[in-house]
Amino acid sequence: MADPKKSPPLTRDSVIAAHALIKEHIHYTPVLTNTTLTDLASTPQAPAALVGTPWVGQEPAKPIIRLWFKCENLQKVGAFKVRGAFHALKRLMTEQGWEEGGGREKGVVTHSSGNHAQALSLAARTMGVPAHIVMPTISTPSKIAATKGYGANVIFSGSTSVKREAVVEEVIKKTGARLVPPYDHPDIMLGQGTLGIELQEQVERMIASGQSEGQSQPKCSFKLDGQGKGKRKGLNAIIAPCGGGGMLSGVALSCENTGISVFGAEPEFEGADDCKRGFESGKRVEIVKTLTIADGLRTPVGVYPWSVIYERRLVRQMFSVSEEMIKKALKLVLERMKVVVEPSAVVPLAVALFNEDFRKMVEKEGGEDGWDLGIVFSGGNVSLEALGKLFEVPAEKAGRQEGKLGKDGEKVAENVAG
Amino acid sequence: MADPKKSPPLTRDSVIAAHALIKEHIHYTPVLTNTTLTDLASTPQAPAALVGTPWVGQEPAKPIIRLWFKCENLQKVGAFKVRGAFHALKRLMTEQGWEEGGGREKGVVTHSSGNHAQALSLAARTMGVPAHIVMPTISTPSKIAATKGYGANVIFSGSTSVKREAVVEEVIKKTGARLVPPYDHPDIMLGQGTLGIELQEQVERMIASGQSEGQSQPKCSFKLDGQGKGKRKGLNAIIAPCGGGGMLSGVALSCENTGISVFGAEPEFEGADDCKRGFESGKRVEIVKTLTIADGLRTPVGVYPWSVIYERRLVRQMFSVSEEMIKKALKLVLERMKVVVEPSAVVPLAVALFNEDFRKMVEKEGGEDGWDLGIVFSGGNVSLEALGKLFEVPAEKAGRQEGKLGKDGEKVAENVAG
Repeated sequence: MADPKKSPPLTRDSVIAAHALIKEHIHYTPVLTNTTLTDLASTPQAPAALVGTPWVGQEPAKPIIRLWFKCENLQKVGAFKVRGAFHALKRLMTEQGWEEGGGREKGVVTHSSGNHAQALSLAARTMGVPAHIVMPTISTPSKIAATKGYGANVIFSGSTSVKREAVVEEVIKKTGARLVPPYDHPDIMLGQGTLGIELQEQVERMIASGQSEGQSQPKCSFKLDGQGKGKRKGLNAIIAPCGGGGMLSGVALSCENTGISVFGAEPEFEGADDCKRGFESGKRVEIVKTLTIADGLRTPVGVYPWSVIYERRLVRQMFSVSEEMIKKALKLVLERMKVVVEPSAVVPLAVALFNEDFRKMVEKEGGEDGWDLGIVFSGGNVSLEALGKLFEVPAEKAGRQEGKLGKDGEKVAENVAG
Repeated sequence: MADPKKSPPLTRDSVIAAHALIKEHIHYTPVLTNTTLTDLASTPQAPAALVGTPWVGQEPAKPIIRLWFKCENLQKVGAFKVRGAFHALKRLMTEQGWEEGGGREKGVVTHSSGNHAQALSLAARTMGVPAHIVMPTISTPSKIAATKGYGANVIFSGSTSVKREAVVEEVIKKTGARLVPPYDHPDIMLGQGTLGIELQEQVERMIASGQSEGQSQPKCSFKLDGQGKGKRKGLNAIIAPCGGGGMLSGVALSCENTGISVFGAEPEFEGADDCKRGFESGKRVEIVKTLTIADGLRTPVGVYPWSVIYERRLVRQMFSVSEEMIKKALKLVLERMKVVVEPSAVVPLAVALFNEDFRKMVEKEGGEDGWDLGIVFSGGNVSLEALGKLFEVPAEKAGRQEGKLGKDGEKVAENVAG
């Protein structure tokens, strides 16, 4: 691991410097808009939708929210993680003694079965250094294959963190490889934060030109004619998912002194809202054990991210949502927006659509002009089988379902009319 | 129905005129590229992959194919059908006698439970005329709701085509509404063809700038450095799905005298490859009864489309693929490209990836320069439940699957490492 004390200071300028360092290796991912979802965000929830939530019986908020989606699901390896991996590796490589000490031959190591494993493997292959990835034996074959596909040396371990760390230690001892952690390191945070710089630039350009990228058509035109016209120059706020907090803290740094508010979004299931609880108690929650469907967000927030998110108050507030809200948001994105995202990626959208505390705040602060809200779609790595399981049709409804992709005669007749 | 004899001549210029007429109402949809899929298309299939196909034992073709995806799944109502609907309606409205005859009050009618129903409803609402949509009673509730959501008057009928046509006749008698058919009409064909004009323009621009739209990054750079460099100006060919043939014939018209070859793609299941069989026998197949998963392509090709596709030979050749190939292509697009498409939309991609007749032709004609191939993603209207059913995990594999979205302890440990 690079000595965190030698990392650049945790500032917006350092994020901009990180972007210059990695931009040739990553996709400048598109920012998409969607009329249906922006309309939905700007429509009060039905009172019935608040039953079973903390806001039951309250008058639904009436915010005006224009949504701008930063599509890191279209990033290399399907997630923002390549940003931090490339940055951490390139920083390591400029360290004094890296070449002389045989760094290029010894390579890098991490333990992960998720997006960070593939991200570091790609970064290492690109830079021509070996990557050792410690994965639990029981990882899904597709993830092992994908990691090997990037040329990494996969080493198996038991599935507890103690067992895996022991294997990592062994690898370090044997190979001299340097550890690149997934989130709890300044270089990783600065790398992930580069998506925030791009998002700010892109929305400014898109508002200025009245055009949305990637669709070549204005999509929020009804809002561009509204009372905010002329006054609007860019984003009012960004909301990003929070797992280990590497990305959220990086995005917060990218917004420092810009006037753009940054919010974090977490699942509330089984205590996955550790950062929100930390905000409330003033103390970082160190252990989390949750099986939320937002499986990228099961991690407690790390020490370095916490220092930015909470201690420096660069994140204004944390919000959480239920599993049901996450599923509803996921369904909307896949079916209406037609892009594939993983469950973790839609947690911020679920906050914007369904969390009345957040929506009341936007109503109050945004008023008639409303807010331009950046939403980070953090990744898109989900299998069709996993999605199918999430949206499984209960047995009693399966009969109805049959017709949809035609197991019966009905569909033939239906489709004659195109 | 507008008198087809009064339609503009079926030429490329008429498609361009149609585009001018409708462009304010539709999305200029993005053209996306994808390195993984372009690499896959340009890699010979494994000999083992040809087992169970007509090409078993043959040497796999070695074509070079650069893929350009026209994303009509991101079109309004989620499919190209709005192009034809807007064009047909706007043409109707300019007919002599429309206003005087009360056309605006009488409105339009069609029978469809698919994308055409929603497309016509949206066009009619936009133009301020009533739309009567005849749908089978047994249509899925979400489709009925979506059509009503566009303000259409939904009328139910039995599910056979005889019953539905009788109801349409009744509506016409009662209201004086004009019939807008889904594909078998020159105005519809010219409207659908407008996507071909856009695709040609977009690829020319993207090749010229070395950039892919919507991703702000060159994605096929390894090819831009190849032997085709400098010589490449635009597409060599377009491949589009063929159901009723309205869109395929329109795209063929959009390429007339451009030197761009146009190919059609069909499922082969239960005789869904009617247009291909028509090419072979020299006679249009009039009745098709298939339950292919590509449910938008269950229709026999219409009379007017056939005149363009076959009689005028504006489509060079038809290709077909198996259900398994369609599912493989669908999985690749959702999981690797991260966009949502319906099964019908990936039939052309399945041809490019898996049909050895097609691939051998590209190898022979494209040689070392390869081909720039436009692929029409026709639509994205598929529910998560339907996708889940398509990719259901057989019971014996379900245990393995469980881990993916975490129903067990493994995943907690896995995700600590991000």
